[in-house]
Amino acid sequence: MSTVPVSDVLAWSKAVLVEAGLQPVDARWVAESLVFADLRGVNTHGVMRLPTYVARIRAGGIARQHSITVEADLGALVLLDGGAGAGASIGVHSADLAVERARTHGIGAVITKNANHFGACSFYTNRIADAGMLGIVACNTESVMCAPFGGAPVLGTNPIAVAVPIPASQRPQVDMATTTTSQGRLLMAEQAGESIPTGWAVDAWGEPTTSASEGLRGALLPAGGPKGFGLAFAIDALLALAGANVSTKVYALGGDPSKAQRLGHLAIAIRADGAQSLEDYRTEISGLVASIHASSVGLNVPAALAPGEPEVARELTAGGRIALSPHVAAELAALALSAGVALPSSMVDLPVPPPLAHLER
Amino acid sequence: MSTVPVSDVLAWSKAVLVEAGLQPVDARWVAESLVFADLRGVNTHGVMRLPTYVARIRAGGIARQHSITVEADLGALVLLDGGAGAGASIGVHSADLAVERARTHGIGAVITKNANHFGACSFYTNRIADAGMLGIVACNTESVMCAPFGGAPVLGTNPIAVAVPIPASQRPQVDMATTTTSQGRLLMAEQAGESIPTGWAVDAWGEPTTSASEGLRGALLPAGGPKGFGLAFAIDALLALAGANVSTKVYALGGDPSKAQRLGHLAIAIRADGAQSLEDYRTEISGLVASIHASSVGLNVPAALAPGEPEVARELTAGGRIALSPHVAAELAALALSAGVALPSSMVDLPVPPPLAHLER
Repeated sequence: MSTVPVSDVLAWSKAVLVEAGLQPVDARWVAESLVFADLRGVNTHGVMRLPTYVARIRAGGIARQHSITVEADLGALVLLDGGAGAGASIGVHSADLAVERARTHGIGAVITKNANHFGACSFYTNRIADAGMLGIVACNTESVMCAPFGGAPVLGTNPIAVAVPIPASQRPQVDMATTTTSQGRLLMAEQAGESIPTGWAVDAWGEPTTSASEGLRGALLPAGGPKGFGLAFAIDALLALAGANVSTKVYALGGDPSKAQRLGHLAIAIRADGAQSLEDYRTEISGLVASIHASSVGLNVPAALAPGEPEVARELTAGGRIALSPHVAAELAALALSAGVALPSSMVDLPVPPPLAHLER
Repeated sequence: MSTVPVSDVLAWSKAVLVEAGLQPVDARWVAESLVFADLRGVNTHGVMRLPTYVARIRAGGIARQHSITVEADLGALVLLDGGAGAGASIGVHSADLAVERARTHGIGAVITKNANHFGACSFYTNRIADAGMLGIVACNTESVMCAPFGGAPVLGTNPIAVAVPIPASQRPQVDMATTTTSQGRLLMAEQAGESIPTGWAVDAWGEPTTSASEGLRGALLPAGGPKGFGLAFAIDALLALAGANVSTKVYALGGDPSKAQRLGHLAIAIRADGAQSLEDYRTEISGLVASIHASSVGLNVPAALAPGEPEVARELTAGGRIALSPHVAAELAALALSAGVALPSSMVDLPVPPPLAHLER
């Protein structure tokens, strides 16, 4: 695994997205959302998504022009049509609009229909927290989750994130799928020839499995059984308030690239300076974080951390460099060729994965 | 287990609460919130709580006078001081105020500090859904949950509920603690001499245990590991926006009855008729429920149900009667004596638990 400077990945990604047809401002948000995830070690939502995004822009599933329109403006609640634009642009627009409305009304909520995949929800909650407000962001995906006891896929991984307005380097936050695990982890287990724990997935007959391959043909199980399933349903119900497609009607990110996904985004901003100063609020939350650290009584269990501490620590120690696996590096090299946008030198000399024949020898 | 008419339990509970000093309107909400839970089979939040509530009213932990004051009114966000009043009264007031503000601003959020235990969150989300809006309600409790890998208790069970504005008899909804299970279930396992699954609790040394007794001396584990822990933290952070105590500072419901718990409540109402008619929204959600029912492909797994369907079905088939265990019936009989409020005849002839000596013979 080699590391490359974020600035290089960012500049190159933006150039590739602009070449594919995105407006520069939209290309910026897409690229920034991807490297944000890579810096935190959440590589499943990082630049490995770039080839898919570019394919969708080229095929029309992601609209080249940013054209978000207001469906209904109720003051503190704004319902938008994302115009099938780039998910990250819609996400940033929604988060900023939620903050603007919260300044006036105390809370601002923006729900958007006709949107596309926007990467990690926490990119947008952190934007809200940077503005000094508590941020909540959620979205839905195509159906990959079955009901708590098994069945066919019917709800998305429907993630939700919350970020608390503490300075970024110490900011508690959560960003979670409502499934126990991701299809990505099943893929990794399949490639490694490993079995998966019960509770992760069911097979195509809707029954529990410990086979990663069977799980990939079946469905992911909800986190915490009925709890994750209930949250995923609630997120669909929230997004449908704007007329967004529910999970069963969302087009898959990995499906036909000419089809807009038509999924939903939700962004909520809440002012933290209503009942007390922002400083007093921060003191209270920092006290709770200290209590969590002090709760590490177990000798044989890992230290207790506040939500988000591992990801923030990874970003702080990343030194502005992100790790690219040989597989992702090779995919980006192929993308550079097809787009005609040369890789920066820092990304050129990365080791490429050995050819398959070599492995089989 | 005998069943008694809800109307009898309701009338008697109100009389007992008024005798203890509550105003009639507050007594009504407390009693209604309790029988709501019993009717749904959520007995842990039902009339079994009445003796505790009465003890707290008598000792001063629950204020006899309803005195909710506005700390800050930002329009769509209102921050309240619950005045240490009865939790259910504060919860109903918050839910109704959230609905009122949502009518004007699209969304309304009410966060209350200095509140007390209010029973099941879903009592209040259903009140919001009855008004045709999507309802979200959460609260915190004293610390009983440890960090994902173990430790001392540091966050509450911090439950959250969501109800979708579909007519009550078919309303999808979720009402979940962020712990895997409750202390009540550990108590039941202890009494039955049963072990508990790993993942439910840790012992007083912060390490995993399958002993219910050890678990009761230790802490409950979060549902879904870091996910439940993150949600519980987020709920504390939301409630602290109003200056509510975080979990570590909340006084336990079962602790000194003269101490107000000073916990927080959150109620959010969101209009469902912004982008489409309420009828169209309901059609969309009903379609998703139908998809869930159709996802029952497993031969050996229970039928897939939408969130909340089991509880709503139980309420519909309860025939207006609630079940009282012999233990709860005996506690209520003792309360009737101490309060000087005679039990209605339907509650008098219940079987009482055999005396302990009889069991030991």
